[in-house]
Amino acid sequence: MKRYEQFADEIAALIREGVISPGERIPSVRQASRHHGISPSTVFQAYYLLENQGLITARARSGYFVREHAQRLRDEPRVTLQHADPAEVKVSELAFSVLDSLQDTQTVPFGSAFPSPELFPLTRLSTSMTRGLRALSPQQLVADMTAGHTDLRRQIALRYMLGGIQRPIEELVITNGAMEALNLALQCVTQPGDLVAVESPAFYATLQVLERLKLRAVEIPVHPQNGIDLEVLAERLASLPIKACWFMSHLQNPLGASLSKERKRILYQLLKQHQVPMLEDDVYAELYFGSAPPVPVKAFDDEGLVIHCSSFSKCLAPGYRVGWAAGGRYAKAISRLKLMTTISPSIPAQAALADYLQHGGFDRHLRKLRHALEAQQASMLAAANRYFPAQTRITRPAGGYFLWVEFPEHIDSLRLFTMALDHGVSIAPGPIFSATQQFRHCIRLSYGHPWTAYSEHGMETLGKLLHSQRRLE
Amino acid sequence: MKRYEQFADEIAALIREGVISPGERIPSVRQASRHHGISPSTVFQAYYLLENQGLITARARSGYFVREHAQRLRDEPRVTLQHADPAEVKVSELAFSVLDSLQDTQTVPFGSAFPSPELFPLTRLSTSMTRGLRALSPQQLVADMTAGHTDLRRQIALRYMLGGIQRPIEELVITNGAMEALNLALQCVTQPGDLVAVESPAFYATLQVLERLKLRAVEIPVHPQNGIDLEVLAERLASLPIKACWFMSHLQNPLGASLSKERKRILYQLLKQHQVPMLEDDVYAELYFGSAPPVPVKAFDDEGLVIHCSSFSKCLAPGYRVGWAAGGRYAKAISRLKLMTTISPSIPAQAALADYLQHGGFDRHLRKLRHALEAQQASMLAAANRYFPAQTRITRPAGGYFLWVEFPEHIDSLRLFTMALDHGVSIAPGPIFSATQQFRHCIRLSYGHPWTAYSEHGMETLGKLLHSQRRLE
Repeated sequence: MKRYEQFADEIAALIREGVISPGERIPSVRQASRHHGISPSTVFQAYYLLENQGLITARARSGYFVREHAQRLRDEPRVTLQHADPAEVKVSELAFSVLDSLQDTQTVPFGSAFPSPELFPLTRLSTSMTRGLRALSPQQLVADMTAGHTDLRRQIALRYMLGGIQRPIEELVITNGAMEALNLALQCVTQPGDLVAVESPAFYATLQVLERLKLRAVEIPVHPQNGIDLEVLAERLASLPIKACWFMSHLQNPLGASLSKERKRILYQLLKQHQVPMLEDDVYAELYFGSAPPVPVKAFDDEGLVIHCSSFSKCLAPGYRVGWAAGGRYAKAISRLKLMTTISPSIPAQAALADYLQHGGFDRHLRKLRHALEAQQASMLAAANRYFPAQTRITRPAGGYFLWVEFPEHIDSLRLFTMALDHGVSIAPGPIFSATQQFRHCIRLSYGHPWTAYSEHGMETLGKLLHSQRRLE
Repeated sequence: MKRYEQFADEIAALIREGVISPGERIPSVRQASRHHGISPSTVFQAYYLLENQGLITARARSGYFVREHAQRLRDEPRVTLQHADPAEVKVSELAFSVLDSLQDTQTVPFGSAFPSPELFPLTRLSTSMTRGLRALSPQQLVADMTAGHTDLRRQIALRYMLGGIQRPIEELVITNGAMEALNLALQCVTQPGDLVAVESPAFYATLQVLERLKLRAVEIPVHPQNGIDLEVLAERLASLPIKACWFMSHLQNPLGASLSKERKRILYQLLKQHQVPMLEDDVYAELYFGSAPPVPVKAFDDEGLVIHCSSFSKCLAPGYRVGWAAGGRYAKAISRLKLMTTISPSIPAQAALADYLQHGGFDRHLRKLRHALEAQQASMLAAANRYFPAQTRITRPAGGYFLWVEFPEHIDSLRLFTMALDHGVSIAPGPIFSATQQFRHCIRLSYGHPWTAYSEHGMETLGKLLHSQRRLE
């Protein structure tokens, strides 16, 4: 264990034991450095880790504070994974029934993959649409279909640059959301029957894509705090002919785990050593609760091996369907495949986003959105505390809008899914996040909607159903 | 030959010989019926055929007139097809170089697949976008991604109904243009290695999709006037394990050919007999020059075998990327595949089109557009007459915006493509329309842009290059 990890553990223990209370300020970097005789950069690394673990939060110009729910929290899930051989994937049917469960607007949408559109600046976006369309020449409606709206591509390249990543604008392919970018990218780097390394648990859409393209999944376990298990990955890359990796290095869906910067660097070295391309699904890039934007694996990419995919769907403009791939050495292949399948995402939507990014106040909106999500997380964690069985383990991610909940082994999340739906509550059952139907006693809950009495009642309902399952067994 | 075909031939001869002059009115249905002792419905059928052949045109409340260019025209191409075995497809590279040739706005866009966006009501569409966004609830931005914008689906279903086709609204899948609809549909009904019947010449994007999905093409010849050769199709369906057909029954790209209603009925019987699904690519549905909207093969579909795909890209809103499939028995599979690949086309674009279809004056715009295209066709045919070698054969389609030009055998359209591009003129060379690289002496020309001195000069340039190729040989 490194010195900064040791120091982080000491602070974490103080928080758990109640020595430092929720809401209280912890020593500043300078104070801690002096007091413990360690370098400021070690303290800073430790605080960064604690922030990522959801225990503390940074407030601009006031220092670091213990998060409100940090002490009262349940343990983190253990996420033990049964070893499984590379597997054909069959989760579609189940995932579609979750999707269907969300069609009824009267249902509490804990199973949703999207945050509430009410959290987004829709009126300002409409203004940007009007402005964007006015600035658009008739010719652009046809010409921009090939490469994407020029100003939008410039704005996206600019955001990479502000994040410290220089990507040539030619590398950007504008797509119909990140979903299309990932789909196209995977088709460009694989053939049917190939092995693809995915996370376990993984976002079910990843598994659906593998299923559709007849690819086999090599499941790599994800730890709720440290992210993907690099030791297992290294072993699998060495022993199996893996053709591609599809990972979320930041705020992984469903666990909310993030790799540290150092572990991202190691991950990239592994990719480079084996010359295996990686799809970096980074749709939650902007939804971090900490003070500093995370650095993607793409930042280390000096060989064009990483296809960094993201979108505006989860952070700004749901339903506009605009995403992109920074495609590295695969950019041209991805762009051509796009031209052969959907040609182009909507040009008016691209024009609206280009205008918004330039004039709409994106960063101001993002700060507001992050605060809202952080507050909603606290409410959901508190409710879980009140209503769920004592042995329940829950993640406390440092961003995004998902909790991963691990119940005692006897709980059957598929039964819970059906029962909860009968009671007007939608959840995402654990097995849809696994190519080999693991995590049967787990569920994913979304806190992406403003917290209301309705949400509270939904959590209470889940709690009752959980207790009733227990009694029956 | 049926009576109405005989009568049509007689009239056609009178036009060609100059007995009836361009612009002149031909006898009304009632007059002709009385004079020739045949039933009004036979006359009507004959006139309908002549209209489809581009020889006459109907004007509302004034009768039928000989079209301006009808007499001076070149012969129709013969479109002879070398017999070829089912073939792996390799046209992508060539097709992409045509696409690339259109990126320079200084190039005369005779090679373009899209009509000029200046022909479309863009300002009115922007108004509809504003109205559509205002009417959209935040929830719809997420909820409508699954099935598509409800009002838009209603408007599309209504247009089917007005065209005499009852399709349940559940059968409609809103897609990212017709291109996505066709891609998804083909994936739903085939496996890699399968045989698919396609037209020859065919739209190159069709061939690209087959190439991508590793399907083999069975080429069915298309006649410039009668459309696809049903005799050959019947033979191929009987002798080969064809898994799907992908046809344009109306204003086929590139020939502009349409099947008569009777031949559409026969085509459907063939599909039904062999239980082979058909993708009906009907993106030019609205661009007919005649008086009556054509009936698609889908109109005969009583078993859900026809997947009717269309869009607003060629007739109303280029770049908006909104199309659909009326998916028959495959609708659910198509919808699910869409959810796994691009999730949804842009919701704002759908909302704008829904508003426009209801309030924008779509039919008025379409009448204007058809007249513009008809006039542009006359200008291009006249220019071809002036500049192209005497043995050149040219189609005169009764709609759309493409001419298919067949030069003497010694002309190499690939060389012409390169030379023309050097001179600032883009064309689409014949071989990209064939899975087996046929039609080397043919090109497709678009008259989808308003006719200017610039266009005239482009045609003159092509003429000079054609004469120079001849001299060199």
